[in-house]
Amino acid sequence: MIYGGIEAGGTKWVCAVGDGAGDLQQSVTFPTTQPAETIGRAVEFFLANNPVDAVGVGSFGPIDLRRDSPSWGTITTTPKAGWGNTDVVGALGAALGVPLGFDTDVNAAALGEQRFGAAVGLETFCYLTVGTGIGGGGMANGQLLHGLLHPEIGHMRIPHDRRRDPFDGVCPYHGDCFEGLASGSALRERWGRPPEEIDDEDAWVLEAEYLALGLFNVICTLSPQRVIVGGGVMNEPSLLPRIRKRVGELGHGYFATPALGEAIDDYIVAPALGDRAGVLGALELGRLALERSVG
Amino acid sequence: MIYGGIEAGGTKWVCAVGDGAGDLQQSVTFPTTQPAETIGRAVEFFLANNPVDAVGVGSFGPIDLRRDSPSWGTITTTPKAGWGNTDVVGALGAALGVPLGFDTDVNAAALGEQRFGAAVGLETFCYLTVGTGIGGGGMANGQLLHGLLHPEIGHMRIPHDRRRDPFDGVCPYHGDCFEGLASGSALRERWGRPPEEIDDEDAWVLEAEYLALGLFNVICTLSPQRVIVGGGVMNEPSLLPRIRKRVGELGHGYFATPALGEAIDDYIVAPALGDRAGVLGALELGRLALERSVG
Repeated sequence: MIYGGIEAGGTKWVCAVGDGAGDLQQSVTFPTTQPAETIGRAVEFFLANNPVDAVGVGSFGPIDLRRDSPSWGTITTTPKAGWGNTDVVGALGAALGVPLGFDTDVNAAALGEQRFGAAVGLETFCYLTVGTGIGGGGMANGQLLHGLLHPEIGHMRIPHDRRRDPFDGVCPYHGDCFEGLASGSALRERWGRPPEEIDDEDAWVLEAEYLALGLFNVICTLSPQRVIVGGGVMNEPSLLPRIRKRVGELGHGYFATPALGEAIDDYIVAPALGDRAGVLGALELGRLALERSVG
Repeated sequence: MIYGGIEAGGTKWVCAVGDGAGDLQQSVTFPTTQPAETIGRAVEFFLANNPVDAVGVGSFGPIDLRRDSPSWGTITTTPKAGWGNTDVVGALGAALGVPLGFDTDVNAAALGEQRFGAAVGLETFCYLTVGTGIGGGGMANGQLLHGLLHPEIGHMRIPHDRRRDPFDGVCPYHGDCFEGLASGSALRERWGRPPEEIDDEDAWVLEAEYLALGLFNVICTLSPQRVIVGGGVMNEPSLLPRIRKRVGELGHGYFATPALGEAIDDYIVAPALGDRAGVLGALELGRLALERSVG
């Protein structure tokens, strides 16, 4: 069997085919323009390569992933121009005629890490990405987190000390929510330059503080067995060690587990698959969709 | 079959027997004194009544509920005097010789609500109790939330505007965490009288603000299909409507679901079983333990 995977991001789409065992045979990356054009390029890629037996999509959101819903497979209320209420699965299904899997980009990456990366054997864990925005997904009890809609971890509220950081936040909905304070967009806006050009230690101490607060809240709620943190902002090498230190301190000895103490380096980790987690997870969503379709 | 259930709280224990179909045949309530005495009274009750086929315990915590752990069934790092590292399951098992189920008090209540109450048919939901402390449990994908340890929702960090509320919080570990700001103990300490004697509207507006922030964060993380909020503090009748209103406002239209809009009265609800949720859930933990023991 040959599976297709699409990491459908708000900035770019990555499409790949593979045999579902962790390899990527061909792949292509193109910018996210308008829906018809973007979906069209994905279809073209899959038709030009080995005909695929199923395709999985890990999509930016918010999306509708309730299988019993009439709008299953659509991107719903995204602020991204032109993409509101886009029926991604409908369009791909009509063109390709194969079973389709569909989930959030972060749940796809979580699935990739659970199958081939840093979450092998885990049943309950979180995958957080800190890029332009902040997104979170993961599994609970061995299945991807869905529920009412899907997690929107970037929009939780965290403490914001305006004396230390008077910045109002960049979230168009919530101002100084987690994403509003700690995303790549927030860094760019607060410091007036892109994250990769920020070399002020105070900036990274503050960033680590917010990321630690957000992760600590996820740990208090979901009790994940591990937390995986990826995304472009994490390319700053001082960030992961600072986050680990602050999460440990936030626990204040309350949590009776080495995971929040001496073993924290093995508890809060980078994605083992790097930037391949999303597309490998999308392939796996395709494999699972085929499995489901044949009963 | 006859099952026993223990709602093992930090203030009182409630023991009951029943047939596992939602009834309670006999029950007894006594204060939580020292471990040997308290566990002894529970054993006495179960031996004096119908011999039970299995017993379930919903316990105050933190507890160890990893079945493969040598300390499974114990209350671990509780600050409650005399109760640190108490092997509740070991003591009950030795005296009663029946299969034992063990989980947190809030997970037991969540299970009770899922079997007989406000969460029937739901796979992913949260049960929050606001009493002396704040505890949260629930299910994800049809199973109780466990993971690394178990949820500690009361210890997440929420925004705390010290100009509006200069109170430092009462959590001995974290000061102004969610529980530190919004528990019954916090109300008592901040306003100088027990919650049931507080009639100042500002006090309840502030309390609703904190509870809404905590619930909103749980909603962002777990995406529960419903949120059940119980506990003594919720006896204040203005609180639940105020919380619903604030949670809806915190969403700011981002969440494309009636649950956070016009249908919020059906989304954030009181426990349908009232104060019987915990002990009915404990009985159910017993029933499941028996089921597991016979394969």
